[in-house]
Amino acid sequence: MFEKLNSLDDLLLHEVQDMYHAEKQVVKALPDVAEQAASPELKSALEEHLQQTKVHVKRLERVFEMLGQEPKAKKCKAMKGILDEGEDTILEKGSSETIDAAIIMSAQKVEHYEIAAYGSLAAWADMLGLQDIKQLFGQTLDEEKAADERLTELAKAGLNQRAASKQPEKQFAE
Amino acid sequence: MFEKLNSLDDLLLHEVQDMYHAEKQVVKALPDVAEQAASPELKSALEEHLQQTKVHVKRLERVFEMLGQEPKAKKCKAMKGILDEGEDTILEKGSSETIDAAIIMSAQKVEHYEIAAYGSLAAWADMLGLQDIKQLFGQTLDEEKAADERLTELAKAGLNQRAASKQPEKQFAE
Repeated sequence: MFEKLNSLDDLLLHEVQDMYHAEKQVVKALPDVAEQAASPELKSALEEHLQQTKVHVKRLERVFEMLGQEPKAKKCKAMKGILDEGEDTILEKGSSETIDAAIIMSAQKVEHYEIAAYGSLAAWADMLGLQDIKQLFGQTLDEEKAADERLTELAKAGLNQRAASKQPEKQFAE
Repeated sequence: MFEKLNSLDDLLLHEVQDMYHAEKQVVKALPDVAEQAASPELKSALEEHLQQTKVHVKRLERVFEMLGQEPKAKKCKAMKGILDEGEDTILEKGSSETIDAAIIMSAQKVEHYEIAAYGSLAAWADMLGLQDIKQLFGQTLDEEKAADERLTELAKAGLNQRAASKQPEKQFAE
C-alpha cells in the first residue's frame, strides 16, 4: 500500500491499476443489475454498457503493455463502495419503476466515478507525452460520458411516463 | 436496510439520508486533505469547498424539514469508499506535486459522486412537484459542478507549471 508516488508516471500507473480493478468489478456487477431492471430500454442500455466495459478492460490491458507493465489490479475501494451501495438499494423491495429510477442513479454514480478518473488519466498522459495512451483514455472517457447522457435520457423518459400514467389520478383529485 | 421503496417519495428520502451522511463525511475529511496539499491555491480551494459543504449539510436539513422528516443519516458506503481510497493515496510517500495531482483527482471523484446524486434528486423533486426542494438541490448541484471545474483548472495549472520546470531537463536530454 505504501508505495512511492515520486512522479506523475508512478501516479498514472497507480490509477491504471485502480481502474483495472474498478472496471472488472463493474463487469461482474452489471449482469445482476440488468436482470433487476424492469424497463426493456434500461435493460438493454445496461447490457450494451457491459459489452463496452469489457472493451474498457481490454483497453487498460493495452495501456499496461504500452507502459511495459504486467496487468495488475489494485483494489478499488471507491468502486466497491459505489457498487455495494447500489446493490443494497436495488435489492430493497419496491415498485419496479422506483427500482428502475434507483438503478439509473447508481449507474450514473459509476459513470461519474469513471469520468473523474479517466479525465485525470488523460490529462496526465498528455503531460507525460504519452499521446497513444492519452487517446485510449480519451476514447473510454467519451464512452462513459455518452453512457451517462443515455441514462439521463432514460430517467427523463421514465419520469415522464410515470407523470402521464398518474394524470387521471391527478384530475380526479382536482 | 430492507425498507420499502414503493414510490419516488421513498426513494428521494432514502437518497437525501444517504447524501446527508456523505456530505458530513466530506466535512470531516476535507481539513486533513487541505493540510496535505502543497499548492496554496489548491489548499484554499479545498478550504473554501469545506465551507460550501457545510452549507450543503444545512441545505439538506432544510429539505428534511420541508419533507416533514427528522434529519437522519444513512451510511453512505460509496462516499466512505471514495474517501478511504483518497486517503490511502494521499498518505503514500511522494513528491508534493504528485500528491497534489492525486488530491485533485480524489476531490473530483467526490464532486462527481455528488453531481450524479444531486442530478437525480433534482429530477425526482421536479417530477414530484417539490419545486422549492428542487431549487435547493439545483443550487448544490451548480456549486459541485463549479468546484469540479475549478479543480480541473488547478490540475491544468499544476501540470503546466511542472512542464515549465522540466523544460531545462528536456533540453539537456536532446
